Amino acid sequence: MALYRSRYHPPGTAPGTLSTHPDTPAGEATLCLTRFDAETLEERPAATIEECLAALRAAEAAGGKGTVWLHVAGTPDADLAERLKAAFGLHPLALEDVLNGCQRPKAEMYDEHLFVVLSHADYTGRDLHLYQTSLFLKGNLVLSIDCCAADLLTPIRNRLRQGGQMRKRGADYLLYALIDLAVDHKFPVLERLGVAVEALENELLEDADAKAMPRIHRLKRHMLLLRGMLWPEREVLSQMQRGDMEPAISRKTQVFLRDSYDHAAQALDLLETYREVLADLQNLILMASGNRLNDIIRILTVISIIFMPLTFIAGIYGMNFDREASPWNMPELGWAYGYPAVMLAMLAIALGMLWFFRRRGWI
Amino acid sequence: MALYRSRYHPPGTAPGTLSTHPDTPAGEATLCLTRFDAETLEERPAATIEECLAALRAAEAAGGKGTVWLHVAGTPDADLAERLKAAFGLHPLALEDVLNGCQRPKAEMYDEHLFVVLSHADYTGRDLHLYQTSLFLKGNLVLSIDCCAADLLTPIRNRLRQGGQMRKRGADYLLYALIDLAVDHKFPVLERLGVAVEALENELLEDADAKAMPRIHRLKRHMLLLRGMLWPEREVLSQMQRGDMEPAISRKTQVFLRDSYDHAAQALDLLETYREVLADLQNLILMASGNRLNDIIRILTVISIIFMPLTFIAGIYGMNFDREASPWNMPELGWAYGYPAVMLAMLAIALGMLWFFRRRGWI
Amino acid sequence: MALYRSRYHPPGTAPGTLSTHPDTPAGEATLCLTRFDAETLEERPAATIEECLAALRAAEAAGGKGTVWLHVAGTPDADLAERLKAAFGLHPLALEDVLNGCQRPKAEMYDEHLFVVLSHADYTGRDLHLYQTSLFLKGNLVLSIDCCAADLLTPIRNRLRQGGQMRKRGADYLLYALIDLAVDHKFPVLERLGVAVEALENELLEDADAKAMPRIHRLKRHMLLLRGMLWPEREVLSQMQRGDMEPAISRKTQVFLRDSYDHAAQALDLLETYREVLADLQNLILMASGNRLNDIIRILTVISIIFMPLTFIAGIYGMNFDREASPWNMPELGWAYGYPAVMLAMLAIALGMLWFFRRRGWI
Amino acid sequence: MALYRSRYHPPGTAPGTLSTHPDTPAGEATLCLTRFDAETLEERPAATIEECLAALRAAEAAGGKGTVWLHVAGTPDADLAERLKAAFGLHPLALEDVLNGCQRPKAEMYDEHLFVVLSHADYTGRDLHLYQTSLFLKGNLVLSIDCCAADLLTPIRNRLRQGGQMRKRGADYLLYALIDLAVDHKFPVLERLGVAVEALENELLEDADAKAMPRIHRLKRHMLLLRGMLWPEREVLSQMQRGDMEPAISRKTQVFLRDSYDHAAQALDLLETYREVLADLQNLILMASGNRLNDIIRILTVISIIFMPLTFIAGIYGMNFDREASPWNMPELGWAYGYPAVMLAMLAIALGMLWFFRRRGWI
Amino acid sequence: MALYRSRYHPPGTAPGTLSTHPDTPAGEATLCLTRFDAETLEERPAATIEECLAALRAAEAAGGKGTVWLHVAGTPDADLAERLKAAFGLHPLALEDVLNGCQRPKAEMYDEHLFVVLSHADYTGRDLHLYQTSLFLKGNLVLSIDCCAADLLTPIRNRLRQGGQMRKRGADYLLYALIDLAVDHKFPVLERLGVAVEALENELLEDADAKAMPRIHRLKRHMLLLRGMLWPEREVLSQMQRGDMEPAISRKTQVFLRDSYDHAAQALDLLETYREVLADLQNLILMASGNRLNDIIRILTVISIIFMPLTFIAGIYGMNFDREASPWNMPELGWAYGYPAVMLAMLAIALGMLWFFRRRGWI
Repeated sequence: MALYRSRYHPPGTAPGTLSTHPDTPAGEATLCLTRFDAETLEERPAATIEECLAALRAAEAAGGKGTVWLHVAGTPDADLAERLKAAFGLHPLALEDVLNGCQRPKAEMYDEHLFVVLSHADYTGRDLHLYQTSLFLKGNLVLSIDCCAADLLTPIRNRLRQGGQMRKRGADYLLYALIDLAVDHKFPVLERLGVAVEALENELLEDADAKAMPRIHRLKRHMLLLRGMLWPEREVLSQMQRGDMEPAISRKTQVFLRDSYDHAAQALDLLETYREVLADLQNLILMASGNRLNDIIRILTVISIIFMPLTFIAGIYGMNFDREASPWNMPELGWAYGYPAVMLAMLAIALGMLWFFRRRGWI
Repeated sequence: MALYRSRYHPPGTAPGTLSTHPDTPAGEATLCLTRFDAETLEERPAATIEECLAALRAAEAAGGKGTVWLHVAGTPDADLAERLKAAFGLHPLALEDVLNGCQRPKAEMYDEHLFVVLSHADYTGRDLHLYQTSLFLKGNLVLSIDCCAADLLTPIRNRLRQGGQMRKRGADYLLYALIDLAVDHKFPVLERLGVAVEALENELLEDADAKAMPRIHRLKRHMLLLRGMLWPEREVLSQMQRGDMEPAISRKTQVFLRDSYDHAAQALDLLETYREVLADLQNLILMASGNRLNDIIRILTVISIIFMPLTFIAGIYGMNFDREASPWNMPELGWAYGYPAVMLAMLAIALGMLWFFRRRGWI
Repeated sequence: MALYRSRYHPPGTAPGTLSTHPDTPAGEATLCLTRFDAETLEERPAATIEECLAALRAAEAAGGKGTVWLHVAGTPDADLAERLKAAFGLHPLALEDVLNGCQRPKAEMYDEHLFVVLSHADYTGRDLHLYQTSLFLKGNLVLSIDCCAADLLTPIRNRLRQGGQMRKRGADYLLYALIDLAVDHKFPVLERLGVAVEALENELLEDADAKAMPRIHRLKRHMLLLRGMLWPEREVLSQMQRGDMEPAISRKTQVFLRDSYDHAAQALDLLETYREVLADLQNLILMASGNRLNDIIRILTVISIIFMPLTFIAGIYGMNFDREASPWNMPELGWAYGYPAVMLAMLAIALGMLWFFRRRGWI
Repeated sequence: MALYRSRYHPPGTAPGTLSTHPDTPAGEATLCLTRFDAETLEERPAATIEECLAALRAAEAAGGKGTVWLHVAGTPDADLAERLKAAFGLHPLALEDVLNGCQRPKAEMYDEHLFVVLSHADYTGRDLHLYQTSLFLKGNLVLSIDCCAADLLTPIRNRLRQGGQMRKRGADYLLYALIDLAVDHKFPVLERLGVAVEALENELLEDADAKAMPRIHRLKRHMLLLRGMLWPEREVLSQMQRGDMEPAISRKTQVFLRDSYDHAAQALDLLETYREVLADLQNLILMASGNRLNDIIRILTVISIIFMPLTFIAGIYGMNFDREASPWNMPELGWAYGYPAVMLAMLAIALGMLWFFRRRGWI
Repeated sequence: MALYRSRYHPPGTAPGTLSTHPDTPAGEATLCLTRFDAETLEERPAATIEECLAALRAAEAAGGKGTVWLHVAGTPDADLAERLKAAFGLHPLALEDVLNGCQRPKAEMYDEHLFVVLSHADYTGRDLHLYQTSLFLKGNLVLSIDCCAADLLTPIRNRLRQGGQMRKRGADYLLYALIDLAVDHKFPVLERLGVAVEALENELLEDADAKAMPRIHRLKRHMLLLRGMLWPEREVLSQMQRGDMEPAISRKTQVFLRDSYDHAAQALDLLETYREVLADLQNLILMASGNRLNDIIRILTVISIIFMPLTFIAGIYGMNFDREASPWNMPELGWAYGYPAVMLAMLAIALGMLWFFRRRGWI
């Protein structure tokens, strides 16, 4: 589980060492090349790096027009990373972060390119999975590396096919679109978490049962993980929207990134609200549990207070003092109405106590 | 409930896509046009966009004098949004926020116009409703979009009709008036919440009963929602009052926005105070509940400690040892004053214990 | 109670509307005029605005020398406010804050004048009252509006009468003196609160009784209110001491305001310390309550464990099996030493248990 | 106790009023004059202000070489303060802080001199005492006022006598040495607090007894007081080390103040760590107390569940139904093996229950 | 334990006093000299300071090419420190921090050199040890002082032997490599802590037993200590990566330090996540403990409520009223079916109660 692990090289490893992570199946990653400008769109689902370089050269030959998008689906192994580095001049520190995975979201300007790390979240209703999305922007090349489900990018591809704004604007707009996708994918997750919180709340407002505690704990943990991603993502978007990455991200695209920033801020707000509600529900449970304990013990006390004196009285008249030895010995036993009198006395005691308890609001 | 939902487009949708939200009834929104300058005031309750454009042209012909205010009552559908966008050159990202609703309060300078999102709160004593108010300021046009009750704007209209300052000052002052209205509408809500908190406090200081917990929880949730709006609203007003939006908002109007900022800060202070009082009341309940438990158990213990020995003594003299078999077998039973002696002993034990408990402060 | 209310105009009211607050008795406020320079001092306890204007003109005629201080005792009604506004050119937003009362402490530079809102606190040992003090500084005029007890300002008046620094320095020094008075008046209140906290602490360290909870709650609420005033007051003084109000407040006076700032910071430190001590005392009570519960239940358990077996044994020998029907039926009853043996056995059981409990540290 | 008191003048007193505090014994303070340069050192344990002025004039005559250090041991009374003010031109606001005592640590640049307030802590293992140290730096004069034990300054004096760095560097280095002493004196206090926390922790990890609560409370209070001094002291040192006091404090001395700043930061870190450990220990106690309660009640329940049925059975066979009246009345009593059978049944019930409880892990 | 101690000189000691700490064995430290440039590498495991100076002169003679790295393994005693100071011109304040140990991580620019203090952590699964690493950078000399295990630096040495980047880049890159090593060594520690937290969580989600409290307490304490190091380390790295140390640290190396900064931030994120999970687990235990108490007491109450009335009834028919004295005295005892009737009544009562409790969900 992502909470407890952070992939890391053995301490002392040279920075930028590209080694396949043991959990990464070798050669798993596939490349998908898309080249487009306002007029044309070319898609190659199983491309090679050489085709990508050719596309870049073609775009350059055409006067720098057109954007080349290379998408790597799956975590690349060391070999592929080396080839990407050689072909596009990527910084080894950035590629190391791609191979290691589990990085904090961040945006870093290298001399060579812009490098952005974001996360994709997937919540099945029981488990929360977080995937890393790595994005490179270098001139008119966008390189995205992601091990999410393949159909995640379909909306972006469709928008490219339909033409419109996305085809006309440059590579930084494509980068924005990919960032926006990662941010907006948090909303369905949050909605499902919100539904779970709401269900819990309704349940607990009716009957604040402590059995819900592990569920609350699990929800809180999912939210902890999600917040661990959303906080730095909001920070990244705040930086990008402010213009810190300016030559790479144009002013026009910054307006759109401000929109993504708003979404990230809204997602965080929702998350914090959920967390406060959960904390409050824990309080509710704590109080209800104490209340229930009071109720039970009150009943026990009432019963004990009623029956203990009665049993004691019965015990008294069960004593075997020898009435013949002395007239002082339990003369009540010989009275004509002794038994009914005792029974009535007992009834009176019981009723009196019940009346007393009812008056004090105990029953 | 607003807590658990945030309206969003499917991830990957192109930014600025204007689609009617499923919950929005189509064609519901009505337009209301007001044109005024220091001398004249013209109101058209059911206006069209074309009339508005004509009014704008008329104002321009008159040397830029006069302000045009178009109020859209209700959430616009995609069609109306498209027409507004075409007519006034509104930014699609802003309009998308209008259609989606449930946005965080914010103030955004677009190249084309200023866009402000605020909230209106309505508290019925049981439920808290939050509505989005969207405000556009472009030159001498103010466009407000709001799905609140219609009579909310009546005080503004009346002030326009009565002439005075509002008619003389420009569009940014009208914008301020609408912002001020949204902020000041939080006070009646806060007052009602404050009355509820005060009632709870008085109740609980007399009898800290855990049954109040769900009420506290509900109040806290309302406050959580309200705070979620007030925090960014205060931020928005702080920005506007500082002069961040300066060409659009004149220096003269900033003084008034500082006043609104003060109100928002005051509202937040009140809210935080309520929240702290509620947290403290929870503590009070927790303590009182523990106290009550102690009381009950002390009574149970006192009763048990008194009656257990007595019952045991009665049990002893209820044993059937054969007194004839041996003089050692329960000779007490045959004594002349055995029974009174035992009864007195029991009484002494009971009284002694009561005295002991009273001395230790248990009863 | 100030906690739950904030006076406000109906939303939508024009800003700067001066209307008498319903709680304010009309015509209650009295004016007191003081004009002084290094050589002369003139006091008029029941002055009119016209006299004040005359004094201002006189000061101007004398080459701008001398300071005019107009003190309004009591909350002014709308009529007086209008006249003040007309006579001295006060900003309507500032005057509105004066009439409404219950404002957050703040310092605002208007084009016309400096406007400062502070609070006076009064703690009777049971209730905490907070009053608003409004101060205007315009040229050599200081206007103070306050509904506190009349003798509050006596020390200031005395210092004026005695001459010295205060007479020599200008209007901003008088403003400082009034601010300093408001800040320093928090110390007697804090001292009384501190004494209450200390008394509580000593009490609870001896016997952490939950009955102190409502007292703690009340103290915390007073502190909450006081902190709500002290925080923004410290902020105001920090601003003024830094020189944000520079032309109005001279450099020389800023040194004195730094002293007031120090006092406010110190007062806040004290308050926060009290609050932490109270939170800790709540913890103490919680723990002590749990401890006491454990003690009580331990006693109940010990008593039950001792008497239940004994009572059971007595019950056995109270059974009526027919000894004549069979030699197997309760032969113990016929033994010569049956009864003493049983009694000794019971004694042994009781002593054994006591020994066992003592060894485990239960009694 | 310093927690609950802050010495203050009656509100409205003129700033800079020098009045002897009632708790200060008059004429208690003694002066100690030290004059040194690289070559010479002159010490006068019971000096007068005039001697000090003479020493200053001598230093001036010698071309500004040499440093004059006047130490006032004990809190000065108003008379001494007036003379100090007259002799050295000290600012009355600063002197007022000296006389009042109990100030927050601070560093203030007056036109005339630098004024630094710090604290000395003394922890006896039971009580924590905090003393104020006031330091003035004016040209080559250092004036220190302190009511600590006399031997506190011995290390400084010894370093002066031994010559070395301290004699060669100027007055600001002496000031630094005095500041460093005040900061470093917190470490023995923290060590003693740390030992107490560690002892508590070891004790409570073995047996988390709630009786430790008042001790925890006391430790927390000491730490609260100490933190109240350390926070502003760190702030003061951060300011001084950054160069905010630059003409008075030379660049060379700032390097040393950075060292003192590090010490203050380290002390605060330690303190915060202790506070978190104590908070955690409270949690531990709370949990252990709940656990113990559960244990006790489980035992009570087990005993009750075992003996209640047995006593009931014994009660049944103690009933006096008339066996002669009908063969249906308690024929068991006449059976040959009735008694042993009942006894065996009881034994079986008891053993069965014990087995059942053991299986459920209750005993 | 590092939590409770901070090594310090007696207050008043002259700054920069180099004295062997009593815990440091004299002459323990060994020196290891490494000189390298792109082409050559020279290692001397047991070097002297003179050899180091010779190496520095040789490097200078070769035109400033090549880096000299002197590693001191073990804490130096005062004598060695003096010699290091004399040979390399180190600042006494820095050396004092080296001898004292237990410093907060920090980076300080002295006129003479850059001084960095970091920590190495070692977690055995039970105890956490923190060691100080001190690094000096002066021209092309790197001096590292560390009392960790010897093989810690092996990866660095190996990279030097293998040549590559590290040999080509200058002294600041070696410094970076040592810093990176210290930061990355936190990850194995965090992993082990994470595994412990995860194990605890799984255990407690199944059975939230309060016996885990001391384990949680210990884990929290380790994390407290680790956080106390990681917070300032992140701060140090943030400073260095921003370019605050620019002439000493080249721009090229700053990119790598940004990577280290990322790692430190990630480590802190992990740590904070663990801490929140642990806090939540404490909550879980608290709730489960309360729940368990409720269960036990409910059972006790059920048993008491069933048997108390039955025992009372048996007690009644054990009374000895004299049936012959009056027909009113316990005629039931003489009825033919009295006994079976009572037994059936008892059974009915018991069954009725069980049914009632089951319906209320108590059993």
